[in-house]
Amino acid sequence: MSKPIGIFDSGVGGLTVLKALRGRLPHSDFVYVADTARVPYGRKPKEMVRGFASEIAWFLQKLDVSAIVVACNTASACALPDLAERMPVPVWGVIDPGVEAARRVTRTGHVGVIGTKATIASGVYQGKLIAAGLMVWAQACPMFVHLVEEALADSSEAEVLARHYLSSMPRIDTLILGCTHYPVLAPVIQRVVGAEVTLVSSAEVTAEVVSRAFMNSPDGRGRVTHYVTGGVPAYQHTAEVIGGVDGQVIPLDVTRLADAGVIAG
Amino acid sequence: MSKPIGIFDSGVGGLTVLKALRGRLPHSDFVYVADTARVPYGRKPKEMVRGFASEIAWFLQKLDVSAIVVACNTASACALPDLAERMPVPVWGVIDPGVEAARRVTRTGHVGVIGTKATIASGVYQGKLIAAGLMVWAQACPMFVHLVEEALADSSEAEVLARHYLSSMPRIDTLILGCTHYPVLAPVIQRVVGAEVTLVSSAEVTAEVVSRAFMNSPDGRGRVTHYVTGGVPAYQHTAEVIGGVDGQVIPLDVTRLADAGVIAG
Repeated sequence: MSKPIGIFDSGVGGLTVLKALRGRLPHSDFVYVADTARVPYGRKPKEMVRGFASEIAWFLQKLDVSAIVVACNTASACALPDLAERMPVPVWGVIDPGVEAARRVTRTGHVGVIGTKATIASGVYQGKLIAAGLMVWAQACPMFVHLVEEALADSSEAEVLARHYLSSMPRIDTLILGCTHYPVLAPVIQRVVGAEVTLVSSAEVTAEVVSRAFMNSPDGRGRVTHYVTGGVPAYQHTAEVIGGVDGQVIPLDVTRLADAGVIAG
Repeated sequence: MSKPIGIFDSGVGGLTVLKALRGRLPHSDFVYVADTARVPYGRKPKEMVRGFASEIAWFLQKLDVSAIVVACNTASACALPDLAERMPVPVWGVIDPGVEAARRVTRTGHVGVIGTKATIASGVYQGKLIAAGLMVWAQACPMFVHLVEEALADSSEAEVLARHYLSSMPRIDTLILGCTHYPVLAPVIQRVVGAEVTLVSSAEVTAEVVSRAFMNSPDGRGRVTHYVTGGVPAYQHTAEVIGGVDGQVIPLDVTRLADAGVIAG
């Protein structure tokens, strides 16, 4: 039997990546870790997020996954490439695929990126986009994650906040949604930035890149197992905003996760 | 030795109540439970919140507290008065003190209340205020909790959202801050509603009512012990927005908490 692919996020946002991956690898098995006990990562210090990512990666490693997808822009920005160097299996983040897609899509070379405070403050997107020869505008949108988790993606609050965050946006032709929650907000963002701006979803392009590296396992059963640190019913309820949870959901004690991470990492 | 007073909230919001209580009962000991693994409660179904409140109340009961303060408007709205009837110790919520204070403060009898979706949807505040003979306006402000936890209480986002939520407010002279996070937003709310509106903080008035029932224990040491379901460093980091954590912080496995609640409750 082929091994499952491990995926993790601070919460439900990474389910957009999982969904995109399952669309491309329908027979593969997946293990998804949602660290809902410590969500959101977006305002936490870089070292703290790096520690969380390491703990979860080692937990996945013990479950014998074939690869790890860091389905969280904040964790990707804070923990990669260090985490990839230390893990015995391949580790994929969501940032490089987004940068690569933006480079491919843009006609004018003027690109924007939006994300959490930590993601934007890390400067990782900006550095990579500039290194690719592009002009870059970046904006932290800390309240966007909460719009999604509060099921307010299609609300007057979303409209008000999107106009607020994007009011100073210069003329760009491509905007990277640098947070795995943001695809849920794509309709309101598209309305605010106008149809002439192409939105790049890091969830979709990451699935594209990762699925290229994996043959679709003919012997997998397309099963997903979720491990959640913050209580099972609470997770299932929040996950409804991203289409709900398909598969078994197992509680994971965040204290023991931390211990395991410290010992193994 | 006198027993500690138990307090709980979904997260850090109830620390505003704890702080107000410690100011009035400096020698009393307190146990504070923060259910950060399952925060926020504000959008979760009433039955789910009721279950969380019951689990935590029984956990506090086992620690032999003298009384329980539900320092969370959502939990108070969803779980009281049932919880109080089932617990062997006195249980205080934050809603009755807020209603009583508004009744005392208002000159015109026109009162408003803002809170989470679940609090406002429960209609508990509205029912009690109307029963007290007042005219009532109510507004759910689901994004306010997140402004506080993202350390954005004094930001352009806070200004934009406060204007949005309060734009339809009729002429009132008293506004109840019906969420223990909201005192942190009082400056921006006061600016938006104008100086002629008196803000009633449910944290402050609850501390007033509860402290009247307790003699300040001369044999207590004024100690606080925190139990958190969602990881200790993450809690300490988020709590900085409400003045930080004073006292020991002990991790609490949310899975075992649920088991304990089911068995005992």
